[in-house]
Amino acid sequence: MAAQRLVIIGGDAAGMSAASQARRLKGPDELEITAFERGHFTSYSACGIPYWVGGQVDGPEALVARTAEEHRARAIDLRMRTEVTEIDTAGKRVRVRDLDPPGSAGEQSVGGTNGGTDDDTDGGTDGGRWERYDRLVIATGARPLRPRIPGIDAPGVYGVQSLDDGRTLADSLGEDPAGLDAVVVGAGYIGVEMAEALVNRGCRVTVLERGEQPMSTLDPDMGALVHEAMCGLGIETVTGAEVTEVRTGHDGRVTAVRTRDAEYPADLVVLGLGVRPETTLAREAGLPLGASGGLITDLSMRVRGYDDIWAGGDCVEVLDLVSGRPRHIPLGTHANKHGQVIGSNAAGGYATFPGVVGTAVSKVCDLEIARTGLLEAQADEVGLRYVTVTIESTSRAGYYPGARPMTVKMLAERRTGRLLGVQIVGREGAGKRVDIAAVALTAGMTVEQMTALDLGYAPPFSPVWDPVLVAARKAARAVARDMSGA
Amino acid sequence: MAAQRLVIIGGDAAGMSAASQARRLKGPDELEITAFERGHFTSYSACGIPYWVGGQVDGPEALVARTAEEHRARAIDLRMRTEVTEIDTAGKRVRVRDLDPPGSAGEQSVGGTNGGTDDDTDGGTDGGRWERYDRLVIATGARPLRPRIPGIDAPGVYGVQSLDDGRTLADSLGEDPAGLDAVVVGAGYIGVEMAEALVNRGCRVTVLERGEQPMSTLDPDMGALVHEAMCGLGIETVTGAEVTEVRTGHDGRVTAVRTRDAEYPADLVVLGLGVRPETTLAREAGLPLGASGGLITDLSMRVRGYDDIWAGGDCVEVLDLVSGRPRHIPLGTHANKHGQVIGSNAAGGYATFPGVVGTAVSKVCDLEIARTGLLEAQADEVGLRYVTVTIESTSRAGYYPGARPMTVKMLAERRTGRLLGVQIVGREGAGKRVDIAAVALTAGMTVEQMTALDLGYAPPFSPVWDPVLVAARKAARAVARDMSGA
Repeated sequence: MAAQRLVIIGGDAAGMSAASQARRLKGPDELEITAFERGHFTSYSACGIPYWVGGQVDGPEALVARTAEEHRARAIDLRMRTEVTEIDTAGKRVRVRDLDPPGSAGEQSVGGTNGGTDDDTDGGTDGGRWERYDRLVIATGARPLRPRIPGIDAPGVYGVQSLDDGRTLADSLGEDPAGLDAVVVGAGYIGVEMAEALVNRGCRVTVLERGEQPMSTLDPDMGALVHEAMCGLGIETVTGAEVTEVRTGHDGRVTAVRTRDAEYPADLVVLGLGVRPETTLAREAGLPLGASGGLITDLSMRVRGYDDIWAGGDCVEVLDLVSGRPRHIPLGTHANKHGQVIGSNAAGGYATFPGVVGTAVSKVCDLEIARTGLLEAQADEVGLRYVTVTIESTSRAGYYPGARPMTVKMLAERRTGRLLGVQIVGREGAGKRVDIAAVALTAGMTVEQMTALDLGYAPPFSPVWDPVLVAARKAARAVARDMSGA
Repeated sequence: MAAQRLVIIGGDAAGMSAASQARRLKGPDELEITAFERGHFTSYSACGIPYWVGGQVDGPEALVARTAEEHRARAIDLRMRTEVTEIDTAGKRVRVRDLDPPGSAGEQSVGGTNGGTDDDTDGGTDGGRWERYDRLVIATGARPLRPRIPGIDAPGVYGVQSLDDGRTLADSLGEDPAGLDAVVVGAGYIGVEMAEALVNRGCRVTVLERGEQPMSTLDPDMGALVHEAMCGLGIETVTGAEVTEVRTGHDGRVTAVRTRDAEYPADLVVLGLGVRPETTLAREAGLPLGASGGLITDLSMRVRGYDDIWAGGDCVEVLDLVSGRPRHIPLGTHANKHGQVIGSNAAGGYATFPGVVGTAVSKVCDLEIARTGLLEAQADEVGLRYVTVTIESTSRAGYYPGARPMTVKMLAERRTGRLLGVQIVGREGAGKRVDIAAVALTAGMTVEQMTALDLGYAPPFSPVWDPVLVAARKAARAVARDMSGA
């Protein structure tokens, strides 16, 4: 029997993890694997871009986990700079076109040269050529949001979604960008990480956030702590700031950013407004999309209604285990897990991605920001009633050198006392504590059960009651008080 | 109705947490609370002693969480330097004696002066006086092991169990102990922490460990990593070294430590051999003790067979939730939890301490050492069969500055795949990751379930697969391979 053909659209985390896992389970005589990537880079850490721009990491090579050559050495036929323009699910084929003219150096040094052509497909034409598949993986990622305002496409305005974006920005900053005015639009994860990067390079940084507080992934009261800390770090952070225009000079380059209320001088503008699933291809092919625009899959990451198509990474919705709702959560760590699951299933094995609890961690300079589970608004939205508590503690025993403050907010369901969510804002040692709550959420623990958790304790690592336990104790009391009607 | 009288033996973590929690629930008109402490200090962090000796913490004041005065201000009648010498369970009374002669300054500055006498008890005599109780809490702690060898009581040999011990050692080191030869006997938690302390003070440190490897709380293969790292830190670490004699000079002070094979010059010797439950009083009163010598309690920390006596802290056995066996695990964090539970129950509320999973974390210089769950030998002992995997990873994304190596070993039960234990040896950022496994153990997760855990990811905090997830993936594969008979 001839080998089955697995085709993958998108050569980053989800797609190439799927390819690697499938190859681990099935050799080339059983499964032919072809992946199409329209960009210059494969298997890279987009999450690392802020640290490259900030000068802490040598990019882009360091951010590439596995090069095209390395994939090809494992019999994965990776075609760089090759765009899929159409999915024909009835005919089980995809239409592709080469983005670089023949003979050009289409791939960067970290990639290698383009792979060979495919024998059993149509030849190239203006409209591209068709490549058949037996099984298909859609891993098309996400695209950054760009507000539709005057000047948004001017030179000096940068997105930071792909490694190509990162290079454009890093190159434009040059050797010494100190003293430049940088405006970051959006104070979510990407926004605050880029603010840190630009501060590290010596820029004067202003962050403009439309919402009430930075980090809308936190409740406003916790976001306010971030706001205060960012200002303390020398990052001018303006909230309620809706950007209306990017102003340009006579050379066409950006000179300032206008909001409804003010104007901020800008030598460069970085867009950190978040992303949406890149599912144009999937929508045009009639595949099922959820309210977020992400592809709908089952727990095996198979696209609903299609036996031979899987999807993963930033282009899918996933199940939020706490709310029971689908959610779009673009994160490299999920994409890698999706890829593993898809690779197993597409190669005839069995694996599932049960869902997420909404964990995220980030930092801006020495401020650590973490969350897991539901915010108040998210709990409200699904009809959950809850109590909230907020506590202050330290990363280490209070008397131990380097003990740093942290604030932990915890939500617990009324009556059941089930943990619903945790948010942490603090300094060194704060962020990763969210993992304790992430596992407890996954296990469906109550805050009362959490008070007995046997967490690692020694003065250099924790107070005798870990901050998460302090919050759990207070939350358990709040649940009891609420239950007694007091 | 007259107030009930709650008497507490032992004024450290478990006893005073019980007192505080009971007071929170019941006012002085309902519950009179009297605590007896034979030492000079109350509510202190013995775990902080190494950092005091090492000069990182100003002791002893900083290590006292709550002074005697603070307790008394909350209507807790704390009697310092008062020893309980007998428990009469039939008569519901304890015999006490004052350790300091009348008029002496029995308490240190951090404590305050001794509290008033008790109206309704017998007057003092040579044999002490009786104090009645309605409810009793035993929180007598642990006593350090001392090998019965010649010279063990010589000046220059120090234990580090109590704050009084800590002061003796800190005083004897003086301002500048640099260049002194220090021998630490025992390479468990206390031993390695004291080794770090003495290295920090500039001593030449030799650690003598009877066992095959340092840290017998780890499997030998993981202990070997600690051994290698300790030598790299300039701590001479000798294993298989059974101490036979402490040699003394003509002034009676220690000069060297002898083992069967060698002699090590020593200006001072620190004993770090671990502790046993201090349950002499309890045994003499006929209370039930387990194989470890610790008091046996139920889940509410009530002593088995006694409705009006609770016990907690280092003097009790606790249930190991993974093995189902009782175990003696002396740790301040457990003692605090026990105290909370006891205080609730003794004040007429309800709380339980369900047990432990055996989590511990420590460090020696920049080497972090952590464990939770069962070692191989502990699993063997209860008849559990398991697979083991060991992986190498880093604390942060490999490309991010400050990414440090760590080794994670994981045990999973054969067939069920249930997580049985995790051990971690690494550098900064390694130790507290054990909490992820501690929660997973508590929840009874399988390693397969763990592979999907939604842990916090960002390059400064973790590789895209957290080291614990890398271990879980490998363990899940090992379980599957074992199941298939391969």
